[in-house]
Parts: sequence; C-alpha cells; structure tokens
Amino acid sequence: MPDLPGRITIHEEGPREGFQIEAGPIATADKVRFCEALAETGLHEVQCVSFVDPRRVPGMADAMEVAARIRRKPGVHYTGIALNLRGYERAIETDLHITGGLQMSASNTFSMQNTNKNNEQTLHEQRRQLQFFQERQIPVDSAIVMTAFGCNYEGAIAPETVRDCVASLLDLAGTYNIRLERVRLADTVGWASPLQVQRVIGVVRDKWPDLHLSLHLHDTRGTGLANALIALQMGIDDFDSSCAGLGGCPFAGHRGAAGNICTEDLVFMAHEMGIETGIDLDALIECARMAEDIVGHPLPGKVMHGGSLSQYREGAAA
Amino acid sequence: MPDLPGRITIHEEGPREGFQIEAGPIATADKVRFCEALAETGLHEVQCVSFVDPRRVPGMADAMEVAARIRRKPGVHYTGIALNLRGYERAIETDLHITGGLQMSASNTFSMQNTNKNNEQTLHEQRRQLQFFQERQIPVDSAIVMTAFGCNYEGAIAPETVRDCVASLLDLAGTYNIRLERVRLADTVGWASPLQVQRVIGVVRDKWPDLHLSLHLHDTRGTGLANALIALQMGIDDFDSSCAGLGGCPFAGHRGAAGNICTEDLVFMAHEMGIETGIDLDALIECARMAEDIVGHPLPGKVMHGGSLSQYREGAAA
Repeated sequence: MPDLPGRITIHEEGPREGFQIEAGPIATADKVRFCEALAETGLHEVQCVSFVDPRRVPGMADAMEVAARIRRKPGVHYTGIALNLRGYERAIETDLHITGGLQMSASNTFSMQNTNKNNEQTLHEQRRQLQFFQERQIPVDSAIVMTAFGCNYEGAIAPETVRDCVASLLDLAGTYNIRLERVRLADTVGWASPLQVQRVIGVVRDKWPDLHLSLHLHDTRGTGLANALIALQMGIDDFDSSCAGLGGCPFAGHRGAAGNICTEDLVFMAHEMGIETGIDLDALIECARMAEDIVGHPLPGKVMHGGSLSQYREGAAA
Repeated sequence: MPDLPGRITIHEEGPREGFQIEAGPIATADKVRFCEALAETGLHEVQCVSFVDPRRVPGMADAMEVAARIRRKPGVHYTGIALNLRGYERAIETDLHITGGLQMSASNTFSMQNTNKNNEQTLHEQRRQLQFFQERQIPVDSAIVMTAFGCNYEGAIAPETVRDCVASLLDLAGTYNIRLERVRLADTVGWASPLQVQRVIGVVRDKWPDLHLSLHLHDTRGTGLANALIALQMGIDDFDSSCAGLGGCPFAGHRGAAGNICTEDLVFMAHEMGIETGIDLDALIECARMAEDIVGHPLPGKVMHGGSLSQYREGAAA
C-alpha cells in the first residue's frame, strides 16, 4: 500500500458529539475533566462544546462554563462549533480556538429538511457569515460537504455532485480571498461504503490533486473503519472522530445507532499499520472508559473493551 | 479494486458462538427459531451448536435437542462443531452436517495454554482424529490455523510461521489422501490489522497460489470489517461471521469484548461494494434483532441498529 500516509491528524469531537446527544444531564465538572484528559493523550484538537440554543440542546447549556473552566495544555486546540451567527457571538466571547467554516450539503433535500434552506440559499447565507467572520476576525479554515456519500432523502449521491459542491465552496472562499486548510467530506447519515469513498475521493482529487481532503465518517452501519482504511490507502491523512464512539446518529432509523467513528479504534488501526498519530493509545483508552463512566452506559468503542495490545507485547518481549 | 470477488460465501456461526458464551440460560425453543430464521435469509451454512462438555459449557447442554428440533430448509447446511472424539461421537448421532477439520495454532504457547498440547502433540492427536473420521466416514473439509495474526502470549506472529502451519496441515491431509476445500486463517484473539492480514495472505498465497483461503475474523479491537475489506481486495471470498456480532472473546482483557465480525455488517459492506452474498440483508437484520431479544441485552452489530438503506433507496426512487 504505497500511498499510506506516514502520519494522520485526528480531530477529536467526542465531548461535543457525546454531551450534545446524551439524554441525561452531565455535570459540568465531568465535561471539563474529560476534555482535560483527552488533551493529555497527544490529540492536537479537542472539540469541547457547541454553541447552540440551550432550549433545543439542553446538554450544551453550560457551554460557556465548560469553555471557561478547562485547564489548558499548551499546543492543544480547544475548539467549539457554532451553527449560526448568534452561536458565533457566544463562541468568540470564550477563549476557545474558534474558526469559521463553510458548509453545504450534497443533497438539496437534506439541506431543506435540516435547515429549511436549499443549496442556493445556503450559499447566500454563507456570504453573510463570511462577512461576519471577516468583521470579527474569525479565521476561516475549512469547508465541509455534508451527505457526501448518500442521503436518506435522495438516496445515492453522484461523486460529481460532491465535486460540484466542492467547486462552489472553493469559489466562495476565493471570492473572500480565503485559502481553505482542508475540505471535509462528511458521511452525515452513515451511507458510505469503501467503494463509494474511493469514488468520491477519486473524482474530487482528479479535479484538485493538491486539495487537502479530510473525512468525517460515521459508523452507523459498521463500515466506518473500513471506509477509513480505503481513505488511508488513498493517502488521506486527516479524520474527525469521537473518543469511545461518543455521539450518535439522529438521522438513523433507530435510536442507539452509532455515530462518528471511534477515535481509539482508528488510532489502534493506524498504529498497527505503522501510521503515526502522535497519540498515546493507552491514555486514550482510559479516556474512553472515563466517558463510559460519565455517561453511565456502554459506548460503542471496541478497543476500549478489548484492551490494547501493549501489555501483551511487553509480556511477550519479557 | 480489480481483485474483488464477485461473490462471497459466509459461514454463519452466531447461534453456536452466542449461545455458548451467554451467561443466562436460553430456551431451546429460542435457539431453534433463531437457527430456522437464519436459514431463511439465504445463508448457505448455519452453525447451530457445539458438542462440548455441558459441565464446562452449560449453554450447550441441549445441543442434541436443538439439532433434533430445527425444521430443515433444503439446501442449507446445518452444522455443529466438536472439539474432541467424544464430542464427535455425539455430533454424528444427530443429522446435522458434521465434518471433520484439522487445526493448529500458529502460537505454540497459545496451544499449550488452550489445550495443554504443544504443536507436535497437536499434530499427533490430529492423526488419531483423522483415523476416527475415516472409520466413521466423516468427511474432512477444512483446516484452520488459529492465532494466525498475533497471540496474547507470543505477541506478533510471523507470516512465515503461519505458512509453516499451513504446510504441516496440508502435509497431514495429504498423508490421508484428503483434499481440503478451504484453509481458514483465524484471528483467534483479535490481533489482526489490515497490513498484517495482507502480509499473512500474501506469504501463504505466494507458496500455494490456488489454495482456497478463508478468514475467521474477530472484531475485538474494531478493525474487523477493515480486515475483511483488505482480504476482499485480495480476492478472498470466504468468511466466518456471527449474526448481530453474537459471541465474545474470552481471551480479551475485558468481559464484553466483541467476538466474531458481524454477519449483517459484512453483508451490508459486500452488497454496497457490488459483491453478492446470496443473503437477504433485511431478513438478516430481523434475525439480528431476534437475537438481541433472545439474549436480552444489546449486541454489537451496527447495521441492525442503524437500519438498512433499502427503505431510503425505495423512497428516493419513488
């Protein structure tokens, strides 16, 4: 596999994904200690909170407090997300590392259902956001194409549609003289299979060979790490994931469906393949177990239950 | 991916794996209806029971009764396994499809710990078993190399060690004029990673390009389907798996660790990649949900919780 990257970057989304979707209240102190523990593992980014309407997402009502209380480790990006200008207004009051992003769904119908805006309206709204980002000096670093691998409403998504979305987002960024650090392709509703991942990356790459692509994969149907593997085989070196598999998929048919791919399972696979992550797997597994304790129910991560291999390797070497 | 097989064969091990490891008693009638439902999905083989000492494995005490009560669907192999001659004596009293197998562990230490026999003693015992199989006219169809991808005691396993095990087993079979239908490589303790799978298959294939290889993969550390993917990329077309991910890994560090890869997740991935299985995924998902009802706790399968995509595809097409 000559195209495997030597090193990958992982964007940890567990705290935000997990504490957003959990039904029961989670103590602010638990959120804080989980973020702090994650930052000790070697992760470069910990996405701590989202600045959403607390009436809609009660689990994020203490976002400002979580952001304020986390003890910082130098070199780690503690981030938060916002979905609209009101959210960004709150976000930039904190000292989290807040960046702006561009987004678009490859499925117009998903966009309508999810935000009540079609793709044209979405692009128009992004212009307003970009002006806001520039006024507030919020750096814009990435764009995301949602439902890039399939959609519950529109079914299969043609790779060319994803390519066209990327073109729209790059055009938009160009208009504002923004150079995007990465373009994220998101399997928002868990449709991706390895061949579809290969096709979409292939079509986008054919057009922009030097574009830095990143994957946001879900494990809703069990193919998450297989999808990551084929992306690694194509040299993709940037992934979003969630410690312990925290989170879920509100778009799946059943409650309890898996959400993001699990960080420590991805790290395990990468390390076993000789790919560096900069992350201490055993420390990350401890974080996953902490997450399970905090939410009070089993989480879908596998290596946290199977255990890492380091103990056996040390035993075998002794 | 030019080497992808057009079709794969799946050996369903869920009933045996699951009902063997569950702590609580499971009604014989539930075991029977689960096996019957699995046989309706298009599976070619359903491994129903194991003929083990009921004092050691109480969940298999009713193996004879389960075997007797299952209503048969023509064309399906209802199988059972035995670990020793006493087990085989019981097995052949049933009308299950009983075959003999050869086995060896790539780790001598694992073999000693698991069976109290080293590899030489294991091969010697196999000769006794082969004589027994021939006397009783039990066909011998496969050989298995256990801990082919790593071992909790010995650590990494060199691909050449696996190759040597295969050579020993083929020699042994040859001595008895047996032509093996398949040689199974088993990730018994859940160590496999994609590159290791690729290396082991590569080394064995280099020596026997026409040998029919089969994989018995575990998902103890989350890489199960990624390991299956790389095997598919190498043209492997034969897999063991377990509906709903029934089973577990008694060798893992923690109780609750995942066992075999999940059948319906494998089927989902295969179908999404254009690989035929002959299996009705939606019917199989219903079986997985039945399994969860029967055991009374969540099982690790993903697509059973995320739901198949057929409903959305039909909706999108309408």
